[in-house]
Amino acid sequence: MKRKVILAIADGIGDRPCKELGDMTPLEYAKTPNLDKLAKTGATGIMDLLGPGVPVGTDLGHMILFGYGLEDYPGRGPIEASGAGLTLEPGDVAFRCNFATVDEEFNVVDRRAGRIRENTHILADSINGIEIDGIKILFKEATEHRAVLILRGQDLSENITDSDPKIIDGKTKYKKVQSTDGSKESMHTANVLNKFLLKANEILKKHEINKDREVKGKLPANFILTRGAGMMPNMRKITEELRFKASCVAAEGTVLGVARLAGFSTATDIKMTGNLDTNVKLKAKKVVEELQNNDFVVVNLKAPDIMGHDDNPKGKVEAIELFDKLIENILSYNLNDTIIAVAADHSTPCERREHSGDPVPVLINGPGVRRDRIEKYSEIDCSHGGLGRIKGCEFIWTLYDYLERTKKRGN
Amino acid sequence: MKRKVILAIADGIGDRPCKELGDMTPLEYAKTPNLDKLAKTGATGIMDLLGPGVPVGTDLGHMILFGYGLEDYPGRGPIEASGAGLTLEPGDVAFRCNFATVDEEFNVVDRRAGRIRENTHILADSINGIEIDGIKILFKEATEHRAVLILRGQDLSENITDSDPKIIDGKTKYKKVQSTDGSKESMHTANVLNKFLLKANEILKKHEINKDREVKGKLPANFILTRGAGMMPNMRKITEELRFKASCVAAEGTVLGVARLAGFSTATDIKMTGNLDTNVKLKAKKVVEELQNNDFVVVNLKAPDIMGHDDNPKGKVEAIELFDKLIENILSYNLNDTIIAVAADHSTPCERREHSGDPVPVLINGPGVRRDRIEKYSEIDCSHGGLGRIKGCEFIWTLYDYLERTKKRGN
Repeated sequence: MKRKVILAIADGIGDRPCKELGDMTPLEYAKTPNLDKLAKTGATGIMDLLGPGVPVGTDLGHMILFGYGLEDYPGRGPIEASGAGLTLEPGDVAFRCNFATVDEEFNVVDRRAGRIRENTHILADSINGIEIDGIKILFKEATEHRAVLILRGQDLSENITDSDPKIIDGKTKYKKVQSTDGSKESMHTANVLNKFLLKANEILKKHEINKDREVKGKLPANFILTRGAGMMPNMRKITEELRFKASCVAAEGTVLGVARLAGFSTATDIKMTGNLDTNVKLKAKKVVEELQNNDFVVVNLKAPDIMGHDDNPKGKVEAIELFDKLIENILSYNLNDTIIAVAADHSTPCERREHSGDPVPVLINGPGVRRDRIEKYSEIDCSHGGLGRIKGCEFIWTLYDYLERTKKRGN
Repeated sequence: MKRKVILAIADGIGDRPCKELGDMTPLEYAKTPNLDKLAKTGATGIMDLLGPGVPVGTDLGHMILFGYGLEDYPGRGPIEASGAGLTLEPGDVAFRCNFATVDEEFNVVDRRAGRIRENTHILADSINGIEIDGIKILFKEATEHRAVLILRGQDLSENITDSDPKIIDGKTKYKKVQSTDGSKESMHTANVLNKFLLKANEILKKHEINKDREVKGKLPANFILTRGAGMMPNMRKITEELRFKASCVAAEGTVLGVARLAGFSTATDIKMTGNLDTNVKLKAKKVVEELQNNDFVVVNLKAPDIMGHDDNPKGKVEAIELFDKLIENILSYNLNDTIIAVAADHSTPCERREHSGDPVPVLINGPGVRRDRIEKYSEIDCSHGGLGRIKGCEFIWTLYDYLERTKKRGN
């Protein structure tokens, strides 16, 4: 019996006991009747993406959930570029960027330009296509304040530092990009990028959109902070390797980027923001639509991770209840012969405001799944579950085996 | 929220059901209210240092608990030398030694010279600094009947056998040291060491201290049994690699040696013997003192392991209750923002009188730790715990992640 699989990813859902929630985790505190129903009638466990105590980023976390390993990781730049819909050519170097705000002395006032969301495509257009010292610079907006940059030309290198200082005390300047290996190529690349950053600043600070923002009391998006330089490797596509069709429904560029590199088709919509205002009814509808022509559909909800980074336990509870609503909407379609699995790409404990190496709860539910004794989807309940404590690659392989796409070893 | 971590190591605590204890393990049988409290309000699991069914020595067990792997193991000799406070030079070969007792025909009467504890530094001095065929021999006493020996000079090799026969039937001679690879260097090294062993015997058997022991009916420490030849590699320091400060409170040279190689500072005291007469109040005080200037403090209690080797289940119960008192003393300081973890370096089942590959129970307790459903610290209870069954490296990585010293993979 061949089946289809839906994998719902609650980004950063794993947490730790929060004082504000009576020493419960946000997931324990949240009302999640649909997730609990799936746990009660399915199999549960806890998962370490790479291993216990090893934190992973959203990009690598999703790569693992799509069937890749640490050795396949191309760096954040190429993933973001893929997420923004750009195709890299051999020799290109890609960067992950933020629209940011600097003052006249180049001190970083806000790393996210007031979390700008509107008209970034117009700002991006104004600095896209510039050429410096024979290198062409492609620039494209991504989700919210994010963007991607590609350097295209001869003799480039990915061995350069970030311009993002990651500090926002108002008196720290952006960091001039430097070579990390002293090679001619990397010094040339750093030089071109430094020239571009100043040129972009010149153009952006005079841009109408920014003047308008300042009139409205908003921070101008007048600087580009770069990080995660990477050259695109020749990445194998898991969908081709295992011969199945897959799709990813998500709002965030990083997740969409990983999906495309893995050979997944993607579905997104302006109403799916990734945040608390995302439209989960639409998201569920897209999942079911994508299921028509695919064997495997992944859907990501970013909101729990955002709340973790913001140290907002109550907000995270809300995000998790929204995720439960997404599950409710998917279940309302009464899909037959479909496995539904729930996982996360990493834990983002509120108290840490960053990803941690704590395991995440997982569950698998549907025809053919062995039902264990656990009745609730939470970090603690699932730690006593029948799937045990498994690695990310083991979890995804379990799902691919339900698809009957795994290869028998031996004979 | 950055935290500090205390790791309390109950050396060899893991055991098997003992008939003498009504088929309970010594840990199940022992009264351990403080460990049980930590289990009840924390997370528990079982840990295989390397893997299920693979026994490890105290030295490697501790190396793993400090964040190293089997590939980092330098051999016992260099670890003991480090434990005795000696610094090895490149090309040195180090050995772990026992003061032993032989008869006139060199039959080994006692591998530990009646477990000699007094005046070994005077005996060691009498044979320290001897030169044979251009090789200098450094000799230093260690804990109780133990000592370390270093050969220093040109063209030495670690590929030689032990002189310790490990048999004490009174009619087995010490083993002449031999080359294991037939190389010129190893034959030279074996030759020098064999000459030294006889020379040392000449000096020791006439030594006043030994004559005095014999008058008192004690066995003389008249021979040096060597084992664990090893050359010191260029070992990376985990404290430098992860940029944290750590200290180790212990009585035993092996544990202190591993700690120093790992870049830990060490704290020890003559009143901390490692055995049942060790002063746990003082040990707890040292732990808390060390915590002032360190992020991570390890404390080891050797007694449970000793009782396991002696096939003394009741003695092991006593040793475990002493470990519980150590925990009680540490908890009495009401430390804030501190994680306390409990583990062991291996199991030492009484029935086996040696280390086994049985997993050991572990627990983690403190702010931010996810509390599971387990209420007691024992081999059996913890096997149902929320941490699951993890490897030694995974356990220590989990602790280093609480210190926020692990590196995020991906972005």
